[in-house]
Amino acid sequence: MSDQPPPGFPTTLQTKTVEEGFDLAIKLSRLGVKKTQPDMKVLKRLRAKYANNADSLTAASQVVAINFQTIAAANNYWR
Amino acid sequence: MSDQPPPGFPTTLQTKTVEEGFDLAIKLSRLGVKKTQPDMKVLKRLRAKYANNADSLTAASQVVAINFQTIAAANNYWR
Amino acid sequence: MSDQPPPGFPTTLQTKTVEEGFDLAIKLSRLGVKKTQPDMKVLKRLRAKYANNADSLTAASQVVAINFQTIAAANNYWR
Amino acid sequence: MSDQPPPGFPTTLQTKTVEEGFDLAIKLSRLGVKKTQPDMKVLKRLRAKYANNADSLTAASQVVAINFQTIAAANNYWR
Amino acid sequence: MSDQPPPGFPTTLQTKTVEEGFDLAIKLSRLGVKKTQPDMKVLKRLRAKYANNADSLTAASQVVAINFQTIAAANNYWR
Amino acid sequence: MSDQPPPGFPTTLQTKTVEEGFDLAIKLSRLGVKKTQPDMKVLKRLRAKYANNADSLTAASQVVAINFQTIAAANNYWR
Repeated sequence: MSDQPPPGFPTTLQTKTVEEGFDLAIKLSRLGVKKTQPDMKVLKRLRAKYANNADSLTAASQVVAINFQTIAAANNYWR
Repeated sequence: MSDQPPPGFPTTLQTKTVEEGFDLAIKLSRLGVKKTQPDMKVLKRLRAKYANNADSLTAASQVVAINFQTIAAANNYWR
Repeated sequence: MSDQPPPGFPTTLQTKTVEEGFDLAIKLSRLGVKKTQPDMKVLKRLRAKYANNADSLTAASQVVAINFQTIAAANNYWR
Repeated sequence: MSDQPPPGFPTTLQTKTVEEGFDLAIKLSRLGVKKTQPDMKVLKRLRAKYANNADSLTAASQVVAINFQTIAAANNYWR
Repeated sequence: MSDQPPPGFPTTLQTKTVEEGFDLAIKLSRLGVKKTQPDMKVLKRLRAKYANNADSLTAASQVVAINFQTIAAANNYWR
Repeated sequence: MSDQPPPGFPTTLQTKTVEEGFDLAIKLSRLGVKKTQPDMKVLKRLRAKYANNADSLTAASQVVAINFQTIAAANNYWR
């Protein structure tokens, strides 16, 4: 879609630790949002709202959980 | 359902990079919407709304995450 | 549940192409709805509404994504 | 939880055909509801409502899709 | 988190029958709720409400379906 | 993202028991929320609300179920 990856787009799903894998899951979740709404000003305004709404936070946490499933499998669960 | 694939329908789930896989996940998510609502004018109007709603963006990001699970598995996690 | 499959109920999850697999995922998603609400007139009326609502379209796209996971696995990801 | 299975509780996830597997997925989805709300009169009343609501039907279809994933895997995708 | 497991916390995901596996899925779903809201009086009051709401029942059924996926895999689908 | 893991971030997905695995799933679900809303005072206030709402509790329980899938797989289902 774009010739140049946005700065910081991961080139691998492999991570050294569980926490790095979790951070990568969060990053992928945010990239999913940014590809739909690239305007950082809008995103910041929306964030202020949903970060104070329990159901929005749960929904965000669910996307992270789904991406973490992918990353954990990619890392053979860091076994 | 149609004899002719819409232009650009992927013929493979294999991609060279993680980012290309992620872009394919976004593409599949949009194709899922387009098959239900093919009218591009309607889609554009709806997009203007949901791109400014945090919960709608999270929901869209969740569909991308589910499709990315499929594509990551198809690519053996780019290991 | 019924001795006779509704016309067109798939007898296999195997498809030749990725797109056919995606179309099958859409078909299964609709069959899931039809088994709960078999009245085509009602379905048509509902469709007119939800096809114009972004969140409804995203939700429909999510069911397609889940069914596509199943079908992609059944086809060993068309590798 | 109960010594006697409710009549018709499946004793196996194996089915002969894809459609039987799909019907089993619907059955499991309904059993999930019945275990929470066993009163058939209440269920019937609720059904009248949600069968006429597009988002409710999509949500029901999503539970079927999740259960179908399980059953398809149990049947090695009827390959 | 606690030194003593709550009475009845499962020590294994293995079950003899499909139905026992399904009951375990329901149990895990409830445990997920109880760990967030341990007050049984509150839970009982909430239950009275959501057991009469179709969308709440569908959502509960979805959590059961996700847990059942886990348990079915743990039991190699009772094959 | 951070050089220092927050105290208690898990370094492994392996657990000795099913219950420990379930507790870890709850922990990951909360970490997903905390990374988006790190202000503990806000989280406490939100918790008071959603812990008294059935649908919010079901949604939270769903995130736990998804994380538990990951952890159960990581532990080869404690077989």
